[in-house]
Amino acid sequence: GAAPAVHAQTAVRWRLASSFPRSLDTIYGAADVFAKAVKDMSGGKFEISVHAAGELMPAFGVVDGVQNGTVEMTHTAPYYFFGKNEAFAIGGAIPFGMNSRQLTAWIIDGNGGKLMREFYAKYNIINFVGGNTGAQMGGWFRKEIKSPADIKGLKFRIGGFAGKVIERMGGVPQNIPGGEIYQALEKGTIDAAEWIGPYDDQKLGFNKVAPFYYYPGWWEGSLNLEFYINDKAFNALPSEYKAIVQAAAHEAHVVTQGRYDARNPGALKQLVGAKTKVLAFPPTVMDASFKTTMELYAQLNESNPDWKKIYADYRNFQRDQVLWFRFAESSFDNFMQRQKL
Amino acid sequence: GAAPAVHAQTAVRWRLASSFPRSLDTIYGAADVFAKAVKDMSGGKFEISVHAAGELMPAFGVVDGVQNGTVEMTHTAPYYFFGKNEAFAIGGAIPFGMNSRQLTAWIIDGNGGKLMREFYAKYNIINFVGGNTGAQMGGWFRKEIKSPADIKGLKFRIGGFAGKVIERMGGVPQNIPGGEIYQALEKGTIDAAEWIGPYDDQKLGFNKVAPFYYYPGWWEGSLNLEFYINDKAFNALPSEYKAIVQAAAHEAHVVTQGRYDARNPGALKQLVGAKTKVLAFPPTVMDASFKTTMELYAQLNESNPDWKKIYADYRNFQRDQVLWFRFAESSFDNFMQRQKL
Repeated sequence: GAAPAVHAQTAVRWRLASSFPRSLDTIYGAADVFAKAVKDMSGGKFEISVHAAGELMPAFGVVDGVQNGTVEMTHTAPYYFFGKNEAFAIGGAIPFGMNSRQLTAWIIDGNGGKLMREFYAKYNIINFVGGNTGAQMGGWFRKEIKSPADIKGLKFRIGGFAGKVIERMGGVPQNIPGGEIYQALEKGTIDAAEWIGPYDDQKLGFNKVAPFYYYPGWWEGSLNLEFYINDKAFNALPSEYKAIVQAAAHEAHVVTQGRYDARNPGALKQLVGAKTKVLAFPPTVMDASFKTTMELYAQLNESNPDWKKIYADYRNFQRDQVLWFRFAESSFDNFMQRQKL
Repeated sequence: GAAPAVHAQTAVRWRLASSFPRSLDTIYGAADVFAKAVKDMSGGKFEISVHAAGELMPAFGVVDGVQNGTVEMTHTAPYYFFGKNEAFAIGGAIPFGMNSRQLTAWIIDGNGGKLMREFYAKYNIINFVGGNTGAQMGGWFRKEIKSPADIKGLKFRIGGFAGKVIERMGGVPQNIPGGEIYQALEKGTIDAAEWIGPYDDQKLGFNKVAPFYYYPGWWEGSLNLEFYINDKAFNALPSEYKAIVQAAAHEAHVVTQGRYDARNPGALKQLVGAKTKVLAFPPTVMDASFKTTMELYAQLNESNPDWKKIYADYRNFQRDQVLWFRFAESSFDNFMQRQKL
């Protein structure tokens, strides 16, 4: 039996700057799940206030904020910071990268956790997983994409690092925070925009301003979100609170992927009901994108030693994962998709 | 900044009876991950000793043990207890059920969590997720399976509930704990045995006594493991410890799926290197199994009100999941499987 707990921990108060708009209970909500778990586990002694993008700092300013100690932590998408170093992207999503289970496995039980943490240390960051979106949709287009030629000149809002591939294919990538995409698409400042998937995209209203909804988002076979914590702030925590932060991050990881998976199907039905045209990228576009991506990776292996070191391990892990998933996992999924349920 | 923590919680000591053998750092290891997280988060005040199958009670006696309060908790596979009520299986794995992401989503963000917890309350159980194996392999066979006729008379060790389908197909299912399968297969007491996947199966040595390794394990498109806690023991915890238990379970959930995914590919390579013949179940076997399964479910809907209530929700959720996974998720996975990485 348990006796009532008596608490004598000194209070800890942290601020978390999210890169996402409060309207999205999925991707923004991951930080709420995290903060609530930390508070509950500590009996209210360790409290983290969650701030939407723009409240304390811009969506893309959060790594600077954590590095400088302006805030103790952020919840963000690693690839936003590819301009600092392309290796950031590997911790989030790279084109034709790993799916959600594979990427989490690389981080949790492969070398990914260690390699990325070594890399993040250069930015005074200690990281924890913070949810995954699963494979994303390819986004909203005003015009159909029938061949790679249709990418040329396309002003396309695309998340972070993947813009480097679009650029090589002749497109004009735009890195715009989630909360500002709708206006840009409505005004015609951009021709197309991808965000995540049916549930978030419907909330942000993209279907009202572009009719064609493409899949798959080959640049985000999954997107791993991260909690980045200032290393001094983390290291100052008592060991119990460090363990609490880690477990709360895992809870947010499970809950966020669960929310995306549970909520996307209903939203897709509603979008189709509201005349959205759901289309697959043509094989010529997929193949050209893959080829361009592999050329980019070959160049990054030459130019960026951080990329080279981390990506070598990622790619080996991915090769084995993709081979293994062909057996039990995909043969089961594909069989089920042929049945009438 | 944080001041050092001072702990005044009274100690809590629990015992966890696992249904699994200690040799499996994946499925048995989930309980170790859980217990370590609880201990670390509570500063050593809340300690749970983990006991392998057979140490305190038999592998399949753990629900009785928790219900009676002989132990405070177990880590087990829900379908072992289908003999008490077939609805147990829905919380773990049912033939042609949901994959890992889908099942977790149903539990975390669909109605699955609420429905299963209502059901488990009849057994004095409060449950938490405790890992998933992913889609399993179909197991080890002494002879090739070329048609449904080859199932007839087959003495097949198969986990829990799925035996009901094998039985209807003319096979002779055997419900044997993991730690006792090898001997039965070696002695020829059984003709075939399925356990989980390459990593665990290799550790248990099945490849030494049966040459044909089939996929997919259509009865375990994923297996959700659970922590079952005696309700009185759980309700006696201070609220902080309740939150700690929940987060630790989520951590074990992520880590266990990650371990399976990360460790299976290497084991499969080694098994193939050691002359294991990896074969797909023929389409006639898959189709006959699916048909038999759907007939079983129709009958259970008539005979078992718990099954009917929970399965109706599960099936609706599954139908939407399978539809949605065809778009971004599977089209991405299938594309990647066609590439040379």
